[in-house]
Amino acid sequence: VSGGAPDRGDSFFRSRWVKAPAGATEIDPAQLAPGFRAAGIACGIKGGGVTDVGLLVCDADRVDSALVLTRNASAAAPIRACREVVDADHVRAAVINSGNANAETGEKGFADALAMSERAADALGLETEQVAVAETGVIGVPMPMSAVLPGIQQAAKHLSADGGAIFSEAIMTTDRWPKRVTLEVDGITLSAQAKGGGMIQPNMATLLCFVQTDAVVENPGAALRRAVDASFNRITVDGQMSTNDTVLLQATGASGKPLPAGLLDAVLLQLAIEIIRDGEGAHRVGLVRVEGAADQGEAERVARAIANSNLVKTALYGRDPNWGRIAQSAGAALAGADLDEIGADHIDAAELGGEETEAEIGLRLSRGDARAHVYFSDLGHEYVTLNAEYTT
Amino acid sequence: VSGGAPDRGDSFFRSRWVKAPAGATEIDPAQLAPGFRAAGIACGIKGGGVTDVGLLVCDADRVDSALVLTRNASAAAPIRACREVVDADHVRAAVINSGNANAETGEKGFADALAMSERAADALGLETEQVAVAETGVIGVPMPMSAVLPGIQQAAKHLSADGGAIFSEAIMTTDRWPKRVTLEVDGITLSAQAKGGGMIQPNMATLLCFVQTDAVVENPGAALRRAVDASFNRITVDGQMSTNDTVLLQATGASGKPLPAGLLDAVLLQLAIEIIRDGEGAHRVGLVRVEGAADQGEAERVARAIANSNLVKTALYGRDPNWGRIAQSAGAALAGADLDEIGADHIDAAELGGEETEAEIGLRLSRGDARAHVYFSDLGHEYVTLNAEYTT
Repeated sequence: VSGGAPDRGDSFFRSRWVKAPAGATEIDPAQLAPGFRAAGIACGIKGGGVTDVGLLVCDADRVDSALVLTRNASAAAPIRACREVVDADHVRAAVINSGNANAETGEKGFADALAMSERAADALGLETEQVAVAETGVIGVPMPMSAVLPGIQQAAKHLSADGGAIFSEAIMTTDRWPKRVTLEVDGITLSAQAKGGGMIQPNMATLLCFVQTDAVVENPGAALRRAVDASFNRITVDGQMSTNDTVLLQATGASGKPLPAGLLDAVLLQLAIEIIRDGEGAHRVGLVRVEGAADQGEAERVARAIANSNLVKTALYGRDPNWGRIAQSAGAALAGADLDEIGADHIDAAELGGEETEAEIGLRLSRGDARAHVYFSDLGHEYVTLNAEYTT
Repeated sequence: VSGGAPDRGDSFFRSRWVKAPAGATEIDPAQLAPGFRAAGIACGIKGGGVTDVGLLVCDADRVDSALVLTRNASAAAPIRACREVVDADHVRAAVINSGNANAETGEKGFADALAMSERAADALGLETEQVAVAETGVIGVPMPMSAVLPGIQQAAKHLSADGGAIFSEAIMTTDRWPKRVTLEVDGITLSAQAKGGGMIQPNMATLLCFVQTDAVVENPGAALRRAVDASFNRITVDGQMSTNDTVLLQATGASGKPLPAGLLDAVLLQLAIEIIRDGEGAHRVGLVRVEGAADQGEAERVARAIANSNLVKTALYGRDPNWGRIAQSAGAALAGADLDEIGADHIDAAELGGEETEAEIGLRLSRGDARAHVYFSDLGHEYVTLNAEYTT
């Protein structure tokens, strides 16, 4: 179904824009990379027996890790806890919850985030600085710590090497399907779990992503930053950057083999596109490519202006090959620049009108050699329904 | 009706945010300021006998004028004609059409815009450089000049001192009601006509505004720029800047009396708010005020981020007093800044949840003394319907 959950049996790498790594085999996504265990339990934050607390731990004494955190200036308590307390290069474990973002909760919220990290460290025999904390859900509501802390202890008793599935469900908020994969390629295993980026009131649905591997990753910070820049930093559902966005990469190196080139990038890009597909009410995913811009900043600005234009988003939804809206958005982003009119011959908009769930549009400027691309969601009635009609 | 046309008999100055000028009397908006005549006729661009060509002329030999044109880098042919040919300080007449924006039409379009200006000048006994041209409607479609040029000649025969009403209708595209007023105050008369800023496919509905007065305006360029900065430059329907936006002020000075302080600003602000109210599918108008920003640029950036946030716009539509979305948007606009969490005590969001058609929201930062405000439309199902479902 267009825009619905992927069909069972689909390949994980189903976007035309993702180059599937040669020789990669998908295995049961419940199975984590060797050396990792995870769990998910229902502690009552969401109620109704829904899984809402997760634990992820690396059993190897030594792990190389990297952590990318939101740049939103109004960052949530768990982000501040990660920044101030966690040793980002050697994260052994992560404690997460969904149902409450612990955002806009002041100093009490900060203390609660630290307490979660401490409780997880105690239960796992680790130091607090080795345990990252990530949270997603409603904002401005105090954490129900009397439920969460026992929940963490309970989760620690259920850790399992095939806990990837339940862990990926524990991080879900408004996601319609879990986003997860486990791949074997060239003697290494990589597993990953993510959740979506749209926001639904009263939940603030954050981008969370966890990646585990037994490959050797020489410089995990640089590898993760590059992959995030080419994936999660190139998507826009509604132009918003969440207060809680968190991406964690952990690599044990136990396989003795390097991470195959392009693998991390491909996995994160497919997960990013899944997140758009599962964005609030989204049906179609767009890709805008801008070339011939004067410089990189201009290329990015124009591409994002097009991707964030509600007129382009509604054209994607309505299957309307409307090149004028692309010209308009680009012209607004280039306000004051001295350039010739942007006409139909500079724009590829035909795919907007097509039947495919992925549509690529292009804009060719003749101001220089810089180029940029951005992935985006459509804007349809479901977005308005989800965001306007579910009031507090 | 909420969001519908103003009730007959309503005061023009009906926004709570506009300070109505003391002693101003509204008269029939068909009546132009002394010394001006206008006309509107149907020449067949739109078909169905709908008025689509307008002429506006000042009969005084000497007129002081000012022209504010779009900064969209992909400016339409009439904008380029105004920039390159028209003497902005002494515009005697304007020729306009709706139904075709003459945008993205290349050199032929430019020649057509000039031809319209020339034909109007001929018919009025003026020079081409004294005649501004403004156009609005579909883009990328050649002008039907064989209908337009005779239409201009015909319009010249119907010029009338009470042509303000028909002229204001000739500039309409997707507007649900005409926006116009004539005011008498302190011995001068000021008349104004405007059309809306939303865009509907396949029309590109531009902001057009014409103001006529017999007051003395010492520096019309500065006066118009200040009034536009405080009105049309402070509104956002969908964050887009049209390729055709044009505002023209003409002052004869024949009354010998100065323009009362605040009059032009009040008229343009009310017209700007009318344009939001009549934005595509809009029901409610929001005003966001940001204070305590580090500098003016930051204040503007944060205010526009909030006003352009689809999550805030849907909250305005859904009457949801959701302060978290305001915090989120502000935090994203301030990405990387070092600041404390933005919490509920920094935000006034209660009016989002109210029943009034105008809602004011506030954000108090504590980073400095700069402040900014922006008016914005809501985002509802009608926007999606108008922009997605009416395909070419």
